[in-house]
Amino acid sequence: MGGLETERVVVGWAARDPSGILSPYTYTLRNTGPEDVLLKVLSCGICHTDIHQVKNELGMSRYPMVPGHEVVGEVVEVGSEVTNFRVGDVVGVGVIVGCCRNCNPCKSDVEQYCNKKIWSYNDVYTDGKTTQGGFAQSMIVDQKFVVKIPDGMSAEQAAPLLCAGLTVYSPLSHFGLNKSGLRGGILGLGGVGHMGVKIAKAMGHHVTVISSSDKKRAEAMEHLGADEYLVSSDATRMQEFADTLDYIIDTVPAVHALEPYLSLLKLDGRLILMGVINAPLQFLTPLVMLGAIKNIGVKPIFLVFFFFFVGRKSITGSFIGSMKETEEMLEFCKEKGITSMIEVVKMDYVNKALERLEKNDVRYRFVVDVAGSKLEP
Amino acid sequence: MGGLETERVVVGWAARDPSGILSPYTYTLRNTGPEDVLLKVLSCGICHTDIHQVKNELGMSRYPMVPGHEVVGEVVEVGSEVTNFRVGDVVGVGVIVGCCRNCNPCKSDVEQYCNKKIWSYNDVYTDGKTTQGGFAQSMIVDQKFVVKIPDGMSAEQAAPLLCAGLTVYSPLSHFGLNKSGLRGGILGLGGVGHMGVKIAKAMGHHVTVISSSDKKRAEAMEHLGADEYLVSSDATRMQEFADTLDYIIDTVPAVHALEPYLSLLKLDGRLILMGVINAPLQFLTPLVMLGAIKNIGVKPIFLVFFFFFVGRKSITGSFIGSMKETEEMLEFCKEKGITSMIEVVKMDYVNKALERLEKNDVRYRFVVDVAGSKLEP
Repeated sequence: MGGLETERVVVGWAARDPSGILSPYTYTLRNTGPEDVLLKVLSCGICHTDIHQVKNELGMSRYPMVPGHEVVGEVVEVGSEVTNFRVGDVVGVGVIVGCCRNCNPCKSDVEQYCNKKIWSYNDVYTDGKTTQGGFAQSMIVDQKFVVKIPDGMSAEQAAPLLCAGLTVYSPLSHFGLNKSGLRGGILGLGGVGHMGVKIAKAMGHHVTVISSSDKKRAEAMEHLGADEYLVSSDATRMQEFADTLDYIIDTVPAVHALEPYLSLLKLDGRLILMGVINAPLQFLTPLVMLGAIKNIGVKPIFLVFFFFFVGRKSITGSFIGSMKETEEMLEFCKEKGITSMIEVVKMDYVNKALERLEKNDVRYRFVVDVAGSKLEP
Repeated sequence: MGGLETERVVVGWAARDPSGILSPYTYTLRNTGPEDVLLKVLSCGICHTDIHQVKNELGMSRYPMVPGHEVVGEVVEVGSEVTNFRVGDVVGVGVIVGCCRNCNPCKSDVEQYCNKKIWSYNDVYTDGKTTQGGFAQSMIVDQKFVVKIPDGMSAEQAAPLLCAGLTVYSPLSHFGLNKSGLRGGILGLGGVGHMGVKIAKAMGHHVTVISSSDKKRAEAMEHLGADEYLVSSDATRMQEFADTLDYIIDTVPAVHALEPYLSLLKLDGRLILMGVINAPLQFLTPLVMLGAIKNIGVKPIFLVFFFFFVGRKSITGSFIGSMKETEEMLEFCKEKGITSMIEVVKMDYVNKALERLEKNDVRYRFVVDVAGSKLEP
């Protein structure tokens, strides 16, 4: 693997069109270089973004597409200049596998914000070949985008940390919200949200889960250890919580009003958006706005609310995390004994899993046992 | 003025109804206390928020209403416990004249975010009396909300600093954006925007004015000293400026899309909103959104834009500034020789001035020479 162009034929499960149904697909891996690592995939988590991608909901899908960006594998071969990994290491690969290395974000070790980043799948690598993800026998990845999984952490447990865990850890760390004693809110209790509760609790925060219904109260409080549970339609309780939170991690991957949550923040509090939402953020003209209020049920009180209370609160976005933060996050999870709550499935269940995930019917992350599945047709 | 209840009858110019037309109005000032300062008004600036208020555009106006919250006056009497001011001092009063003194914002010297703050006008004071603003012969104000105007600064020049100047200075200072070498954007070149250019230049920034048309280019570049001028509808130039700004001060007091400006920010850049906009901030459902795009002319490209590029940029609000920052800002303007560009008018021109301000027909702030005007009918 010192730059040789061995043709490596692998089998993965690919979507062929916007139906998003995965089925076995045989393809060749990209050319390898001296800094590349060849890994045998052990486990791969299923993220909500995978649904957006396989169904072309972001309008940029190319088929056949092998999804999967929460990948844990075992190193089976390394290039001649790979210094960080050895055959037999258990390693992780996340959302991106390439960057330009010259722009400001790259030079500042936040390569996830590089405008020329290369996605783990549904993208084109430097050699012109389509990138394919972790629902496959093998992947070839530049060592810069490979991370060691700490000893004692199982592949299945580690997989969801590589996107969901990192997505929560990165902004808390970057914005200085990783100190104990803060009061945090987690909006939405899916794959990212459940990691949010666990990581925030491990940081010593008082954690309030905010949800649209009462359904997950017991789970949030008893299984995940949240301190409070708030139903967003309960105006009295929402009012009680006004101006009390230092931050809210908003994991909802669908459109929703922001004012009710802004009102929960203290002065200088942060609303951190992380769901991929394919909709523009904008102010509406009063006229369009009144229509929208009628359509989507935002109560007129939020008009006054916004004017008075946005104050010096921030709305910010955060996109996964850097490789450096990935390492830190894995160490943090190891040290604090954080595990993800997962449902492990075989590859032949992946389509059903995608269907259930779309209905939010999973506690809280599906992980495909790739190495233990039959991938060939 | 040691707590006596002398009945002080004054004349101001008040709006009587949502037509917003001001006319002479005789009323009594509130009861005074030992910490109060009685001042004779010299000058008072006209802010866009005054229009919102006199016309009841925020839905909470009470009439008769004497507007004016950029007030410079001369101290004519002080209460027995007033320590900071003496008769004859030239002082300023801004947007608020009271706060609870017990909440977190009050204890942190950011009393402008106190939920029980009392507005200079159109509010109710602790004694139950309506507060009235600076388009009047006199005001009584608690010394906490009075600031000394530096020697050598004229009353007319100082007035716009008390709201417009402070509104710009406070977030730049608070967010650590007052260091030299930054690249800033000023969106909208009205009363606040023109102070933004001057203050940002004085901080040593490279300043880009962003406007909806080319009309103010010469003024921005030649009179105000901006470094660049960008027309927001010029897609090519907007693209050239992508990812280049550390912050944008968004002064537009009307609804507008935010994506085009977010795209101009560097990673970790801040879009700081300061216009009072009576509309909710929200994400729309894709369906409503497509309608909105059609209605308000947001180009579909911003869909992709937002998904990819919001990154770790922040949208934040800022509301005037604290009394502490008011003092700092006045000293800063004195030291740097910053003056505001104003059109001084007499009180009998105030209705015309409001009308012209609403059409943005002023370079850049009207200031009423209150002491030099006949206020009585």
